[in-house]
Amino acid sequence: MNKSDIRTTVLAATAVAIAAGSHLLHGPTALQFVSAGVALAMLAMLIGHSTENLGAYMSAGATGALQASVANLPELFVCIFALRAGLVDVVRAALVGSILANSLLVFGVAIVVGGLKHGRQRFHSESARLTSTMLLLSVAAMTVPTLVHLLHTPAEPHEAALSGMAAVLLLIVFLCSIPYTLKSGDRPDEEDAGDGAVVHPQTRHWSKGLAVGMLTGCGIAAAFVSEWFVAALEPTMHALGISEAFAGFVIVAIAGNAVENVVGIQLAAKNKMDYAVSVILTGCQQVALAVVPVLVLASFFLGGPVLTLILPPLLVAALLLTTLIVAVIVADGETIWLEGVVLIGLYGIIAISLWWG
Amino acid sequence: MNKSDIRTTVLAATAVAIAAGSHLLHGPTALQFVSAGVALAMLAMLIGHSTENLGAYMSAGATGALQASVANLPELFVCIFALRAGLVDVVRAALVGSILANSLLVFGVAIVVGGLKHGRQRFHSESARLTSTMLLLSVAAMTVPTLVHLLHTPAEPHEAALSGMAAVLLLIVFLCSIPYTLKSGDRPDEEDAGDGAVVHPQTRHWSKGLAVGMLTGCGIAAAFVSEWFVAALEPTMHALGISEAFAGFVIVAIAGNAVENVVGIQLAAKNKMDYAVSVILTGCQQVALAVVPVLVLASFFLGGPVLTLILPPLLVAALLLTTLIVAVIVADGETIWLEGVVLIGLYGIIAISLWWG
Amino acid sequence: MNKSDIRTTVLAATAVAIAAGSHLLHGPTALQFVSAGVALAMLAMLIGHSTENLGAYMSAGATGALQASVANLPELFVCIFALRAGLVDVVRAALVGSILANSLLVFGVAIVVGGLKHGRQRFHSESARLTSTMLLLSVAAMTVPTLVHLLHTPAEPHEAALSGMAAVLLLIVFLCSIPYTLKSGDRPDEEDAGDGAVVHPQTRHWSKGLAVGMLTGCGIAAAFVSEWFVAALEPTMHALGISEAFAGFVIVAIAGNAVENVVGIQLAAKNKMDYAVSVILTGCQQVALAVVPVLVLASFFLGGPVLTLILPPLLVAALLLTTLIVAVIVADGETIWLEGVVLIGLYGIIAISLWWG
Repeated sequence: MNKSDIRTTVLAATAVAIAAGSHLLHGPTALQFVSAGVALAMLAMLIGHSTENLGAYMSAGATGALQASVANLPELFVCIFALRAGLVDVVRAALVGSILANSLLVFGVAIVVGGLKHGRQRFHSESARLTSTMLLLSVAAMTVPTLVHLLHTPAEPHEAALSGMAAVLLLIVFLCSIPYTLKSGDRPDEEDAGDGAVVHPQTRHWSKGLAVGMLTGCGIAAAFVSEWFVAALEPTMHALGISEAFAGFVIVAIAGNAVENVVGIQLAAKNKMDYAVSVILTGCQQVALAVVPVLVLASFFLGGPVLTLILPPLLVAALLLTTLIVAVIVADGETIWLEGVVLIGLYGIIAISLWWG
Repeated sequence: MNKSDIRTTVLAATAVAIAAGSHLLHGPTALQFVSAGVALAMLAMLIGHSTENLGAYMSAGATGALQASVANLPELFVCIFALRAGLVDVVRAALVGSILANSLLVFGVAIVVGGLKHGRQRFHSESARLTSTMLLLSVAAMTVPTLVHLLHTPAEPHEAALSGMAAVLLLIVFLCSIPYTLKSGDRPDEEDAGDGAVVHPQTRHWSKGLAVGMLTGCGIAAAFVSEWFVAALEPTMHALGISEAFAGFVIVAIAGNAVENVVGIQLAAKNKMDYAVSVILTGCQQVALAVVPVLVLASFFLGGPVLTLILPPLLVAALLLTTLIVAVIVADGETIWLEGVVLIGLYGIIAISLWWG
Repeated sequence: MNKSDIRTTVLAATAVAIAAGSHLLHGPTALQFVSAGVALAMLAMLIGHSTENLGAYMSAGATGALQASVANLPELFVCIFALRAGLVDVVRAALVGSILANSLLVFGVAIVVGGLKHGRQRFHSESARLTSTMLLLSVAAMTVPTLVHLLHTPAEPHEAALSGMAAVLLLIVFLCSIPYTLKSGDRPDEEDAGDGAVVHPQTRHWSKGLAVGMLTGCGIAAAFVSEWFVAALEPTMHALGISEAFAGFVIVAIAGNAVENVVGIQLAAKNKMDYAVSVILTGCQQVALAVVPVLVLASFFLGGPVLTLILPPLLVAALLLTTLIVAVIVADGETIWLEGVVLIGLYGIIAISLWWG
């Protein structure tokens, strides 16, 4: 661990302490909100460092899966608390927003940052293509209950049961996908052979133990800070006059994925496009295949309203379009910054359309 | 013809005889239904053997086209009888169900079975890509009348005429596609050169005449048995309390494609992925480009109601999503079993949403 | 300039003179319509010759961008005049029609003509893929306001503002795309190296100055003639009893893109598929990313009604399907004539559904 790492760690710990203090002592809302936001960003940066160091001991796929899991835990906790409080619509907006923020905004920024620094960037397209196909299929499965609702088919009165069965099927697919996610990146493949240096960078600054410990600690801290951030969000939202849909879609989704955001963009900036694409898309896939079904099934036992998969139709259309576009962009295993600009633009138009509550 | 082949032939003939007897003598419904089902499965197995033997003398594309034609004849006959009886909705559900059952369920099972046995499977992606593009385009064309109906555009009162013209255009595309389907697989191509051994397997157990004769005989028998199966279906359906939409979509569609089902999965299990993809996707394409328009045009002359292309919107959405997903999966010329799991999962969610009539 | 070129130039000048005379002197409607149509076709042919000659001095991408710009100017002028006259719906139909006519009809005819003459045609898929991705993304962005309107989301009362912001975002993406469009075709690329001869054909019959001058002159003349053509269209339309939607979608769109139509098909016939795909798809992209947003923003200042991006839902569905299909067809960098047949068929079905006003 060098000097710069130690400085970052101390700063992050300070920020977390301030966020904790202002939350537990009911400090001013603005302080709670800003300190939690800064603490999240610092933690994300640290997690970036630890994953990068850990990546030297693991395959790109396993690294991505690990980061995505760590990054999705806060989201899962926040959504469970929100469900228990009956805020079903906020959870729905945050879940869809999480997938769109990752696959449009974060992916777009990562492509632009990487592309401006390194020109045309190439990545191990096979595992990215599989992830984007899985994402497309899980989004397709998620839209069936919404279509049943919109089109008033005979299954409409059975929406909760239909959502529950769709959740079980998504979870089965998720369980089947785990071996692939862990293995991807170290298959003996002709592409792999060529890009070997990209897949296994030589940045083993930290010991394996230190990297694992730091990652675990920061993951847990990020879970707590995320919750404080969301707790401070509602008063801030009302003070600033932002609509709930916009807040859920943009602010919760971006903050809830701060880790993927920072790590994905950092990796793209360092021209490790394999890791970047893996982190960002695996994050989306885990939301669709794991977070969403777990929450749907959990909602049956939490006592509050059931989280059916009846999503706002505008968001379902945006989800389908986005996953199709990501599949098209990922298909050729190359990105240029212009593609990133367009992804960001599409995210912007969707976010604007949610501005008016 | 070896011992095992002779045994299968005798068993199949016995099953067909029992199905014929119980149908013509109005035996118990359960016996009619089960014996027809068993006969279909035996015939499908025999057709599998004959096509495989015949495949040694033909290109992958020609073999696929032949099998798909044989497999679609029963469906065409069943639908014409149903149309004459005025069961337009059942025909619509069965046609859409046929495409979805093939491209999601059968393709999914073939990918899983093949992938578990042989790992990553590769296939001649060019002809598969063309088939999936054709399928996407024909489905897109089929959705225009439904959109006109749903959106109440000025063309709404002319739905029958619009459906008729769409059918004529689909048939023209089908006629143009015949030379390609027959030629595909023996193009002098760089990919072909590499995978030559896969495209032309050396399993010439039967003489050309025996294979052709067996294929023809089994095809004709399958047409009769399919009809008996459907005749026994309605009473069975009512006895078991299954909704008509579910029965049409799941049972008729799977039974009506029993041949493609068994053959496609057998070929995938034998790692002949080129044949398998060709059989399965060509089957879908022939339903969309030939069976559907022939039935629409025939309905103008059959005296019953006209079979317009106004399909249930949920099924149109499922068709579009499915063909897009198949195009994405086929694009890279490779399949892994996980992709099959997800296809089966998507089919499951759609089928569940039709369960409640 | 050889004899044939001089003859074409003289014929074109004569046709333009007759169109101008019959328009300015209020000649018979039929003469105005036919002479303007013939003049457009002659000009398009000349622009074809000049671009081909100029192409010898430029990259495929720059040539395509230039041709598309020249070809889109008349459309822009016609739409501005129509907007000032309050004909918002005609402008909307013509804009969507322009994208669909190019990407389905013209692309389809180019593929069929090229494919029948030269068999399987290959093209520099990277730049085509980028263009088709950009097209897909801009169409996705254009659909958001329509979805907001259709689904009555809370943003519905702010449609004009939402359309304006979407237009600004589209224009930003367009400005970012200019360097790529100009550069595409001369990247040092492994594919480029192989197809070098296709990208830089050796047809330098004309001097650079003559080609530029001819292109400029014909572009300006085409702008005027296009307007006269549209002016004569309305009376002709009423005389023949064609619906406004069909006229806007089919006649205005095809006539307004006469240049791309002729040039794209000519290039495909000469087996210069790189140029052909570039001209046709860049034309679509410029309509979506430049013509549409410029018109939306201009409509705020023209005094007439605002051109919101609330398009007819049937056309939005057709746009999305078409751009997805183009992305799938372009993905492999190859075309066969059958794909062209299917594109033309899809265009036919959409056009037929608009026939009944």
